[in-house]
Amino acid sequence: MDASTHPARGGWNSLARNYEARIARGHALVGGKVVPADRTTALLEAVIEPGDRICIEGNNQKHADFLARALAEAAPERVHDLHVVQSNIALAPHLDIFESGIARRLDFCYAGPQGLRLAQLVAAGKVEVGAIHTYLELYGRYFTDLTPRVSLIAAEAADRDGNLYTGPNTEDTPAIVEATAFRSGVLIAQVNRIVDKVPRVDVPGDWVNYVVEAPKPHYIEPIFTRDPAAITDIQVLMAMMVIRGIYEKYGVTRLNHGIGFDTAAIELILPTYAEELGLRGKICRYMSVNPCPTLIPAIESGFIDAIHCAGSELGMERYVSERSDVFFIGRDGTMRSNRVYCQLAGHYADLFIGSTLQIDLEGNSSTATHARITGFGGAPNFGSESRGRRHGSPAWLAAGREAHRQGMPRGRKLVVQMVETFKEGLSPTFVERLDAWDLMDTFNMPLPPVMVYGDDLTHIVTEEGIANLLLCDSLAERAQAIRAVAGYTEVGRKRDRQMVEMLRARGAVVYPEDIGVDKRLASRDLLAARSIKDLVRWSDGLYAPPARFRNW
Amino acid sequence: MDASTHPARGGWNSLARNYEARIARGHALVGGKVVPADRTTALLEAVIEPGDRICIEGNNQKHADFLARALAEAAPERVHDLHVVQSNIALAPHLDIFESGIARRLDFCYAGPQGLRLAQLVAAGKVEVGAIHTYLELYGRYFTDLTPRVSLIAAEAADRDGNLYTGPNTEDTPAIVEATAFRSGVLIAQVNRIVDKVPRVDVPGDWVNYVVEAPKPHYIEPIFTRDPAAITDIQVLMAMMVIRGIYEKYGVTRLNHGIGFDTAAIELILPTYAEELGLRGKICRYMSVNPCPTLIPAIESGFIDAIHCAGSELGMERYVSERSDVFFIGRDGTMRSNRVYCQLAGHYADLFIGSTLQIDLEGNSSTATHARITGFGGAPNFGSESRGRRHGSPAWLAAGREAHRQGMPRGRKLVVQMVETFKEGLSPTFVERLDAWDLMDTFNMPLPPVMVYGDDLTHIVTEEGIANLLLCDSLAERAQAIRAVAGYTEVGRKRDRQMVEMLRARGAVVYPEDIGVDKRLASRDLLAARSIKDLVRWSDGLYAPPARFRNW
Repeated sequence: MDASTHPARGGWNSLARNYEARIARGHALVGGKVVPADRTTALLEAVIEPGDRICIEGNNQKHADFLARALAEAAPERVHDLHVVQSNIALAPHLDIFESGIARRLDFCYAGPQGLRLAQLVAAGKVEVGAIHTYLELYGRYFTDLTPRVSLIAAEAADRDGNLYTGPNTEDTPAIVEATAFRSGVLIAQVNRIVDKVPRVDVPGDWVNYVVEAPKPHYIEPIFTRDPAAITDIQVLMAMMVIRGIYEKYGVTRLNHGIGFDTAAIELILPTYAEELGLRGKICRYMSVNPCPTLIPAIESGFIDAIHCAGSELGMERYVSERSDVFFIGRDGTMRSNRVYCQLAGHYADLFIGSTLQIDLEGNSSTATHARITGFGGAPNFGSESRGRRHGSPAWLAAGREAHRQGMPRGRKLVVQMVETFKEGLSPTFVERLDAWDLMDTFNMPLPPVMVYGDDLTHIVTEEGIANLLLCDSLAERAQAIRAVAGYTEVGRKRDRQMVEMLRARGAVVYPEDIGVDKRLASRDLLAARSIKDLVRWSDGLYAPPARFRNW
Repeated sequence: MDASTHPARGGWNSLARNYEARIARGHALVGGKVVPADRTTALLEAVIEPGDRICIEGNNQKHADFLARALAEAAPERVHDLHVVQSNIALAPHLDIFESGIARRLDFCYAGPQGLRLAQLVAAGKVEVGAIHTYLELYGRYFTDLTPRVSLIAAEAADRDGNLYTGPNTEDTPAIVEATAFRSGVLIAQVNRIVDKVPRVDVPGDWVNYVVEAPKPHYIEPIFTRDPAAITDIQVLMAMMVIRGIYEKYGVTRLNHGIGFDTAAIELILPTYAEELGLRGKICRYMSVNPCPTLIPAIESGFIDAIHCAGSELGMERYVSERSDVFFIGRDGTMRSNRVYCQLAGHYADLFIGSTLQIDLEGNSSTATHARITGFGGAPNFGSESRGRRHGSPAWLAAGREAHRQGMPRGRKLVVQMVETFKEGLSPTFVERLDAWDLMDTFNMPLPPVMVYGDDLTHIVTEEGIANLLLCDSLAERAQAIRAVAGYTEVGRKRDRQMVEMLRARGAVVYPEDIGVDKRLASRDLLAARSIKDLVRWSDGLYAPPARFRNW
C-alpha cells in the first residue's frame, strides 16, 4: 500500500493542509495575529468552513461573548451547519446561530437560563442535540471524537505574539486550547486588552492564531456569591448535623462543596460550631471549589489549608491574591484556576455535598425540571463514586467499611445531598417518581436525566435528620430510610415506624439528638458572618463585593 | 481578627516568602536560570528543605534521571526526610534516596522492576508508603493535599528564558508543572539541549525556575513495542472473538487498548478479519493509547480516525509526525502527548480491554504478585465504570440495556479482560482466591490490591469463549460464567454443566461457534503484519524500530 495516500482520505496530512489554507485566508484578510475588532466577523467567515466543529468558550465565569456575537453576524450562506461542542449555552448568540442555520448540531454540558429557548429550538428542529455531558467527559471527547476545528476563546490580555494571560479565570481554556491547537485546529482569542508584555503566560503564543481586543471586557458575573443574610436557622441546623454526623464521624479532610446556601451555612459555622468541637485541623482542610466569599471566615480562622478553583469569583481577586498560602497563585500574584484539575481533585476527594430539587425512593436525584433542557455541569462527576480510585484515606476507608460489609473490602466516596423536605412554593423534595422520566420522553433522550444516581449517594441530610444509605441492606430499607427524613411530605408520611426504628437502631437513620446536635443552638447566631459586610470585615477589607451585593 | 497573621502560621503568604528565600539561595549559587550540570547537586541542596514534598518526573517514557542522580548525591545532613510524590519508582536513585535518609515517605502509582527492592526497603523501615494511586488520582492530589514543593522534571529542550519543549513525550509534565508553579513551588528542568529558540513552547518559561543541560539525553525506553512475530494462533482466536462478540455486537468506536500481545493481535487483524466483515468505519475509530507500532496497519488501512497518546514510543516519531490526520501534533510537526487528557478520554470511552494475571470467581483481577509492591498505573482508571458519565453512545447504551434490565435505565462502560486460561509456566489465570489478599497482609495495606473490581468488569475473553458478566443475575451465575471460560484450570473443571448451558442459552456464555468465529481461520496468517519488518513496510519506511527489535 502506498502510505502517502490514505484510502479513506485521498492523501495524508489533509487536516494540516486544510489548516494551512484557513490560515492563509485569514492572513490575507488581517495580515497577522492581531485582528481589528471590526474585521472579526469577516475573519470568522474566512477561517470557519461549513460543517466545522466549533467551540465558543464560556463556563461559569468568563465568556467569549464578543466572538459569539461576531459569529452570529456571519452570513449563513458562507458559514452554516456547524457542530457546536462547548461547555455552556449561556448567551443569546449561542442559540441565535442555531436559529439562523449557522449551527445545526450541539454537544454541551449546561444550559441554565437558556434551557427554555433551547428546548423550543430543539422542538422546532433547529438544534440537533448530540448529548449532554459533564465537563470532564466533554473534555475527554475533545481528545477523541469531538475535537474542535475552530475554537473561540477568551482571555484577560494578549501580547502581539499571541501569548495569552487568562488572569484568575483560566477555567476551561487549557483543555479547549490543547485539543484545538494540537489537532491542526484554529484558535482565535478575544482579550480585554492587547499589551506589550503579559503579566504571566497562560497559553503560549505558538498555539494561538489570532487575537482580537474586544470593545468591552468579556462577560462575567458573580455566580458563587451567597449573602449570609439569606441563610436560615433551618440551614444552620442541617449544617450542624453535617459537621457532627458526617465530617466529624468520618474525618473528612478533602472535599467539594456545592454552591448553595446550604453548604454556605456549613462554611460559616466552621469558625464557631466546629471550632468549639475541636475540629480545626481535623475536617475540611482541602477543598476543590470556586473562591466563594462565604469561605473567608473559615480561611481566616485557620481551618483550610488549600483550595483549588475551577474559576474565580468577582470581588474575590485581591483577597485570593493575598492568601497565597491557601489558593493556587501565579508568579504574577493572581490566582490560577483550571477546571480540569479542579474537577479531577474533586472527583477523587473524600466527599461531595450539594443540593438538588427532587429525590426518589432509591435516592436518585435531579435538578432537571419540566420544559427546559439544562444539564448538570460538573455535579455528576463530583457526586459519583470514584471507581478508579485506589489510594486510601481515613474517611474513604471508614465509609468503605460501612458500604462493603462482606466480600472484597473496598473504600467508598461520601456523596451527600443536603435538602429541605419542602422547596420554595411548598413543593416536596421527595417524590415517588422523578420528573426526569417525563423529560426523557418530552425531549426524546436516551435516558432520564439523573444528576446523582441513588447507588452513588451515601447520605441525605434534611432538617429532620440523616439517612445513611450505606447501612441499608435492600432497596426496601433504603426507601424507608429516605422516608424517615422526608418529614411531612407525602413520601415521609408513608414511613413504616417500626422499620424506621430498626434502621435508627442500626445508625441508618440518625436524628439530631442521636449525634449530640442541640437544636436550640441552631440559629443564625452561630454564623461567623451574617452579612456581606461581615465577610468584608473578616477579609480585612480585601474582599470587594460586586455592586449587586452592596445592599448593606 | 488581624488578617495579616493567620493563627496557624504566624503570618500570611508564608509559602511565597519561603519560595523567594529558596530562589535567592539558588540564584546566589548559579546566578540565573541556566544551571551548569556540575552545580546541580549544590543547587538541589540550596533550594530543597528538609521534609519537603518533591516530585521527580518519570513515567512510562522519559525520566528526569540526571536530576534523580544529582539528588541522590546530596548530603543527607542537608537534605533529608523528603516526601516523594510521583508517578513511578523506576530507577535505582529513586530508591537510593530512601536508603540514605534523603527521603522517608512515598506516595506513588507504579513501581515495576523496582517493586522488589521497594518491598525490602519498606520491610526495613526505610520507606513509609502513604498510598498507591492511579495516575489521575495522584494528579488530583497534587491540587489538594500532595502539592509538590519542588519538582524535578524532564524536557527535550529549553531556551535561556526557561521555555521548555517536551517534544513527543509530554506525558505528566503539564500536571506536575501546574501544581508546583502555581503553589509557590520550585521547578527545575533537565533538558537534552539548551537552544536559542525552542521548536514549540510546551511549558512557558515564566513558570520554570532552573534549567540544566544534562550530560546525556534523558532515559527513555520502548515499552509499548510488541513484535508481531511473538503473537500466537491462540491470541488470534481470542482477537477474532473480541471483534465479533464485543466490538461488532456493541458497535464500539471509542476505546482504550492495553499494551500486551493480546490487544496487539486485535490491532493486527483489523485490516484483514474486521475488514472482511465490513467493519471499517464501524468499530475502533477513536483510541486513547500510546503510539504502539502494531497500530500501523490499521491506521494505514483507514480504520482509525484519531489517536490521543499519554506519551510517545521510541521509533514511532517520524511515522506519527507524517500521520497528523490521526495523531495530535504540534505546530512544529511532532506529536503532543499528555497523560491527563489521555486518561480522561480513556476513562470516558466506551471500552477498555487489557490483560491481567489472576481473576477470581467474582471477576476481581490483579497483576500484583508476591514479594513486590507494584501498583497499577492507569489501568484501574481505564478499567472502571465511569459513574460520572452522562452522554450516550450506541455502545454505552447497548451495554447499559444488558446491565440495567430493571429500575432506572443507565448506560454502561464495557470493561474486558482478555486472558489465556493458563499463563506461562502453566500457572492458572483463574483462581478461587487472589494473591492480593496475602499481599494486603504482607505489606500491611488497608485493602487488597485489586486492579479491576469484578463489578466493574463486563466481559472475560479466553481461548474458550466469552463470559458476559452483564447477563449474570447473581454472584453464583457470575462464578459459573467465569468457570465456563476457564478451560482446564481447576476453576474451570468445577463448572456446573447444566448451569453453563442455561447461561449459554441466555448469552452470558458465548463460544466461538455461537458468534460465527471459525476456529480454523484462527492462525497467524490473519495478522496484517507478522514481524517488525512488516510494520516498517506498512509504514512506508517511516517507522524506525529501536535497536533491540532489529532482530529480523
